[in-house]
Amino acid sequence: MSSESVKSINVGICGLGTVGNGTLSIIQNNADEIARRLGAELRVIRVATRSLNRDEVPGVANLGNDPFAVVNDPAVDIVVETIGGFEPAFEVVKQALGNGKHVVTANKALIAERGNELFAVAEENAVCLAYESSVAGGIPIIKVLREGLAANKIKWLAGIINGTGNFILTEMAAKQRQFEDVLQQAQELGYAEADPSFDVEGIDAAHKLTIMASIAFGIPLQFAKTYTEGISHITPEDISYAKELGYCIKHLGIARLSERGVEMRVHPTLISSKQLLANVDGVANAILVNGDAVGSTMYYGPGAGAEATGSAVVADIIDIARYLLADAKTPVVPALGYRSMHQDLEVLSIDEIESEFYLRITAMDKIGVMARISGILQEFDISIEAVIQKESISEYVPIIILTHRVVEKQLNQAIESIEAMADVSESITRIRVEPFHGEQG
Amino acid sequence: MSSESVKSINVGICGLGTVGNGTLSIIQNNADEIARRLGAELRVIRVATRSLNRDEVPGVANLGNDPFAVVNDPAVDIVVETIGGFEPAFEVVKQALGNGKHVVTANKALIAERGNELFAVAEENAVCLAYESSVAGGIPIIKVLREGLAANKIKWLAGIINGTGNFILTEMAAKQRQFEDVLQQAQELGYAEADPSFDVEGIDAAHKLTIMASIAFGIPLQFAKTYTEGISHITPEDISYAKELGYCIKHLGIARLSERGVEMRVHPTLISSKQLLANVDGVANAILVNGDAVGSTMYYGPGAGAEATGSAVVADIIDIARYLLADAKTPVVPALGYRSMHQDLEVLSIDEIESEFYLRITAMDKIGVMARISGILQEFDISIEAVIQKESISEYVPIIILTHRVVEKQLNQAIESIEAMADVSESITRIRVEPFHGEQG
Repeated sequence: MSSESVKSINVGICGLGTVGNGTLSIIQNNADEIARRLGAELRVIRVATRSLNRDEVPGVANLGNDPFAVVNDPAVDIVVETIGGFEPAFEVVKQALGNGKHVVTANKALIAERGNELFAVAEENAVCLAYESSVAGGIPIIKVLREGLAANKIKWLAGIINGTGNFILTEMAAKQRQFEDVLQQAQELGYAEADPSFDVEGIDAAHKLTIMASIAFGIPLQFAKTYTEGISHITPEDISYAKELGYCIKHLGIARLSERGVEMRVHPTLISSKQLLANVDGVANAILVNGDAVGSTMYYGPGAGAEATGSAVVADIIDIARYLLADAKTPVVPALGYRSMHQDLEVLSIDEIESEFYLRITAMDKIGVMARISGILQEFDISIEAVIQKESISEYVPIIILTHRVVEKQLNQAIESIEAMADVSESITRIRVEPFHGEQG
Repeated sequence: MSSESVKSINVGICGLGTVGNGTLSIIQNNADEIARRLGAELRVIRVATRSLNRDEVPGVANLGNDPFAVVNDPAVDIVVETIGGFEPAFEVVKQALGNGKHVVTANKALIAERGNELFAVAEENAVCLAYESSVAGGIPIIKVLREGLAANKIKWLAGIINGTGNFILTEMAAKQRQFEDVLQQAQELGYAEADPSFDVEGIDAAHKLTIMASIAFGIPLQFAKTYTEGISHITPEDISYAKELGYCIKHLGIARLSERGVEMRVHPTLISSKQLLANVDGVANAILVNGDAVGSTMYYGPGAGAEATGSAVVADIIDIARYLLADAKTPVVPALGYRSMHQDLEVLSIDEIESEFYLRITAMDKIGVMARISGILQEFDISIEAVIQKESISEYVPIIILTHRVVEKQLNQAIESIEAMADVSESITRIRVEPFHGEQG
């Protein structure tokens, strides 16, 4: 290709942390292949980073520490926001969109919590705000939901969308280890932050689930309505009992659209060991999606890492470049996949959700206790699918119960009654069970 | 939405077999949801089908038996080709493109064997020829390779891309059954055709693999150069021995780009039982893709069926409709993902390919035979990774050998020498082994 006749698309990057660096190195290392795909050159012409060591940022003409200099550079076509957090990221993205620039961000918190505002600004300015890399790292799940499965009414999706949490649960299951013990190892390996609450309490997963639910069902982003429960209360015993019953425990984000409303929830979940999702181990991510036409499909891959996440950032850049080169009135695909969203679909509170449940009750090893527990469940119209009564280790014995489907608030009332029994000790452990029936929801 | 102000995109369908019917019913059943996504109505205004029973085709204004009437209808924006086979499908697609219409086809044979010609016609006329549904049914693998992973140099991909073959191998493995026995069951269940050779001899998979390799590496379609081997020679014994060694046998399509050239091949393959791909059972499809930035990702779902395949056809239609509504100079994405293809990448013959191998040798149960076999392998520089020598059932004993990597023609020479031994009976069974090292290729 003669460089004279070749168009070029100019990229500016704000923030050279892990993802920003991954993005820059992919654009530079795969420049020829990307130029062949586009029929144009993709060039990073300006970078804003706190570190101004030019040796660490080779091949970039303009290097500074002010992201707004990138946003205000008339030569920049596409701004990449890889700063993270809310400020100045929000302002950077907003100003870039206001300047008529397309923006690619990897910032899941920003999209999940302030995406509605930002997409409105993008629409006013007829530019793209792309965010493939904000969910499940290198897996192109946003594109799949927004385009690949666009023929479908999505019925539900369920994903392992936090690698740290999945690593911890995988290790606990494989080696019968305690949560705190594996968490410490994950921190040593660099899989978990010094403050791990974002990962293990489910906030990170809730950001991603909120985004996927919005695209899947065509509803506005509603992070505040996503139920979020972490994995710190899961014990090796629960993992063992679940295994005995043919299940494993995964930390899932689940979104479902039923006649009763929208479910958005992140919590530990028992799933059948035969499920492909049950075989997704370690730091990997995977999302199972059920559409009314296609049935169930699954998407697996690395959910984090510089180049894996950078792969998704650069895919967004290539998408936008292709639109630009085709002289499209961008965006070709609406930000959340819908030109006319379902504004009125109600999000159910966790109390209203129907689920099967795993219960672990620690009770006195006496005649009549199990009968009384069964009686209470029956009073609340909760039928039992399976029971394991373990050998007593002390005067107490663990009783494991799998229930059939029941509305959660009804189950909570039953649990309260059982906990009030004199012969029942401690609080009852309760984990939701997900059978993934195709016909549900 | 008031129908006055709403644009409409008009679709014509040629061929109402399984996929054509699935396509029509999705467009009709999900009309509202699709209209919300597009901000426009998608309407099927004309259908050509051999059956002219109007009751079977409700809601379509123009029904006839001539596909060229669809192709020549000025009101039709997008033509769907679901006739199958080469003629008249080729002529229908070519004329539609020549008329400036966008075409969506589910016809893998047509794309794999005559796609280069048809894409050239599409390009001349600046229209789309989309074919998502031609590979892996409802899994949006074409979009993933062409767009979702566009930042990457794809290093290799490997897929279970024929559901019939995977059903047969899954049943053989689960129940120790013979190939012919399971094939007959598959025919009774409707999973296999009366003439099953297209599926079990690997031609169907080779069509799909050819298409994926072309998009992955940016090379022209070269079906004639895809090595194709079926599963009819696989025995329950081989499946058992593989299992003992920690492997299962899957019928895979493998494409790899290495410094030595391009590999395109379909054959039974031993893969580690721990691989996620090894857990893909029954009629499901799954494709594992390795890119230089993202690493390994996997895509799983239904590879066939009216609505699953129709989901991919309608996704293509929605893509094109979105381009049209954005006034893009279509196609936004080049047919094979590249504006400037790698015209000169050499496709390796199967003889030139390096692989590990599983060998099953039936030899006399005598002292010295194993030593002689090892000696021959050593002569040809083939090192042994594992050996199982089974108890003798008669005077003959099966010897199972796993080799390290070797160029196939070298292995063939060694096999010839071993087969020439007086103490070796029958021909040697040879199955390729795929370790999926990320660093390979």
